[in-house]
Amino acid sequence: MKSIDGPLSGYKILDLSRVLSGPAATMMLADQGADVIKIEPPAGDITRQMGVGSQGMTSGFLNINRGKRGMCLDLGTEQGRHIVREIAATCDVVVQNFRPGTVEALGLGYADLVKVNKTIIFASISGFGESGPYAKKRVYDPIIQALSGLTDIQADSESGRPKMMRTVIPDKVTALTAAQGITAALLQRERTGEGQHLRLAMLDAMIAFLWPEGMINLTVVDEVRDLRIGQLALDLIFQTSDGYITAGAMSDDEWAGMCKTLERPDWVSDPRFSSTSARFENAEVRIRETGKILRKRTSAEWLQTLDANGVPCAPVLTRTEMLNNPQVVNNDIIEEYGHPVIGTVRQARGATRFGSTKTHSSPVAPALGQHNAEILKEIGYADEEISKLRSDKIIYSSD
Amino acid sequence: MKSIDGPLSGYKILDLSRVLSGPAATMMLADQGADVIKIEPPAGDITRQMGVGSQGMTSGFLNINRGKRGMCLDLGTEQGRHIVREIAATCDVVVQNFRPGTVEALGLGYADLVKVNKTIIFASISGFGESGPYAKKRVYDPIIQALSGLTDIQADSESGRPKMMRTVIPDKVTALTAAQGITAALLQRERTGEGQHLRLAMLDAMIAFLWPEGMINLTVVDEVRDLRIGQLALDLIFQTSDGYITAGAMSDDEWAGMCKTLERPDWVSDPRFSSTSARFENAEVRIRETGKILRKRTSAEWLQTLDANGVPCAPVLTRTEMLNNPQVVNNDIIEEYGHPVIGTVRQARGATRFGSTKTHSSPVAPALGQHNAEILKEIGYADEEISKLRSDKIIYSSD
Repeated sequence: MKSIDGPLSGYKILDLSRVLSGPAATMMLADQGADVIKIEPPAGDITRQMGVGSQGMTSGFLNINRGKRGMCLDLGTEQGRHIVREIAATCDVVVQNFRPGTVEALGLGYADLVKVNKTIIFASISGFGESGPYAKKRVYDPIIQALSGLTDIQADSESGRPKMMRTVIPDKVTALTAAQGITAALLQRERTGEGQHLRLAMLDAMIAFLWPEGMINLTVVDEVRDLRIGQLALDLIFQTSDGYITAGAMSDDEWAGMCKTLERPDWVSDPRFSSTSARFENAEVRIRETGKILRKRTSAEWLQTLDANGVPCAPVLTRTEMLNNPQVVNNDIIEEYGHPVIGTVRQARGATRFGSTKTHSSPVAPALGQHNAEILKEIGYADEEISKLRSDKIIYSSD
Repeated sequence: MKSIDGPLSGYKILDLSRVLSGPAATMMLADQGADVIKIEPPAGDITRQMGVGSQGMTSGFLNINRGKRGMCLDLGTEQGRHIVREIAATCDVVVQNFRPGTVEALGLGYADLVKVNKTIIFASISGFGESGPYAKKRVYDPIIQALSGLTDIQADSESGRPKMMRTVIPDKVTALTAAQGITAALLQRERTGEGQHLRLAMLDAMIAFLWPEGMINLTVVDEVRDLRIGQLALDLIFQTSDGYITAGAMSDDEWAGMCKTLERPDWVSDPRFSSTSARFENAEVRIRETGKILRKRTSAEWLQTLDANGVPCAPVLTRTEMLNNPQVVNNDIIEEYGHPVIGTVRQARGATRFGSTKTHSSPVAPALGQHNAEILKEIGYADEEISKLRSDKIIYSSD
């Protein structure tokens, strides 16, 4: 058992989910103290093949499964499914992200598990929802990007060609949304004693995520505007003589600081730039002219002057530079630890700092089936029964 | 008072936060039943000027403040700050996203409020954290994009130039992370009776969000790889004869379906494409050659054939097309309602569906200071005292 102290300590979560959306959600809960039991098929989660590493222990797996306990069993056998029901009977939460209908066909749906655990919280994550024309389709992150309007938002300013985000935003936004939903359901159960089935579609999570400003011009139904106006203003990356910086002036004060920095005091009263709305309307020429001047000196010189003149600014960092940025170092956001299989590992900690509780102390992700025996013993299996499960090919492990 | 039924019903949240990261977090909690009291300065939250609308009620404000009650008072007066402390004494949670040090200087920090409310949960959201070289700097979304490595991930495949995301991802990822953290702190308090001060930096939230795959090649410390390898594979948007689609084959089965669709059966056994890893290594030629063929027919023709052959695919939708997509319509993710000031409004609902509770029934965002009198009466003020606060310019309202 884990000895982690956190707001979710004492809760036990059965995690049937695979790949990214579910596992990233349960890792967040594990970081906060929950005892997460990850169930994997004999071949292991596909993320065991992703990233750097070997023997099924890779950076791709580690980054979304740290701090969990691992069990490997064959859901294709009735005995395997029986064990899952037995574990579910001892848990507070079950999380699954199979395609709609799958978990019910396995006899592991909400209706099945509520029979063995009256107050279970059952979280179903799907790509598109349980009904509708896309419900049974396979989902990958780019598909949700394309359907949700995200690729339209990112469209190239000149050609209008839609563009993908190069990081899997829908899966991870879904994970955060699910982690909050599960926590809220635990809170509700703590007060009412009742469990529930909560459902979340990646498509819904992404549309809700984009809405605040991505859909700002679709919000008032009778007054739809050109959706791409002003998007250019967001691309505030400027090339200097030795790299890239970002700098942006929103208020009049900040704009005055920008003009001083650029040695263009005339731009303060220039009617194209003299108010927030004028600067917004003339974003293209403003950014182009600003860019011409910024190209003349180094990033360090500009950042120092911009800072001194009260203009929000920052270097544009590569990921490797980010690791050593003094603010990142100050925040201790990246932790390093020794992993028994693949050496020294660095990962971001859970971002929220809980004032009265410690951060996690057991980050290592499980090897395939590493905790089979431990978990089976907790639900009452004897050593000889566990050996038989192994020889009968109901449970598996990588050792 | 609100009559919303949800997992957070009965909790009262004092929301001192402004702009996006804090307000989007508390809206999620309001959607789930919390009574959120938003405090605004006399000039109103800056988002009242953003998007479509007028009289301080705009799509930008509505999209992150629905379902809250609004109070407008001057924190620059001791009496205004006194009222905030009185309200805090009756709340479960306080949320603030001022720059570090500001809330303490106002006498509204955790140390001040815990004196009037022993079990308060105090959530501080900052740009960079409370200490370190950037702590006092102003923060905008592009700055966190630049520092966190996000613009490096999005860098142009050809020129290597870093690129911004055209939607404010750091602010909204911070909002989701904060909503989960606050819910977890409420859960902890429900079990232990203890409040706490929780802290979240946008920079930390973003690095944690990017880590799972965005930093996959930085995770194993002694084996750092070229971080930009494989990024092209994510840009799976193909131009057809009449628009854009996305389609991607991960497994061998899906690749066979893709080859059948493209009428290139020879590609199944082509050594460049015959395994997942080969397809990954030869992503550039694979995507280029696939693109050439897909350009020849319409999106509808290709999507039908790809679907029939088991290849994950979808149309690439503009935001306006997204509204009418049959799956989006099926999910009822977008809700419409009449707003008293700006007419019919559409917004995405909270994405998580809680099985045993209803969704929100009171989406309208407050006018500036709309609930001043109601809230003051709840904490014991009489009508004549409220009138005096108004004439003394301690409280304000737009009517």
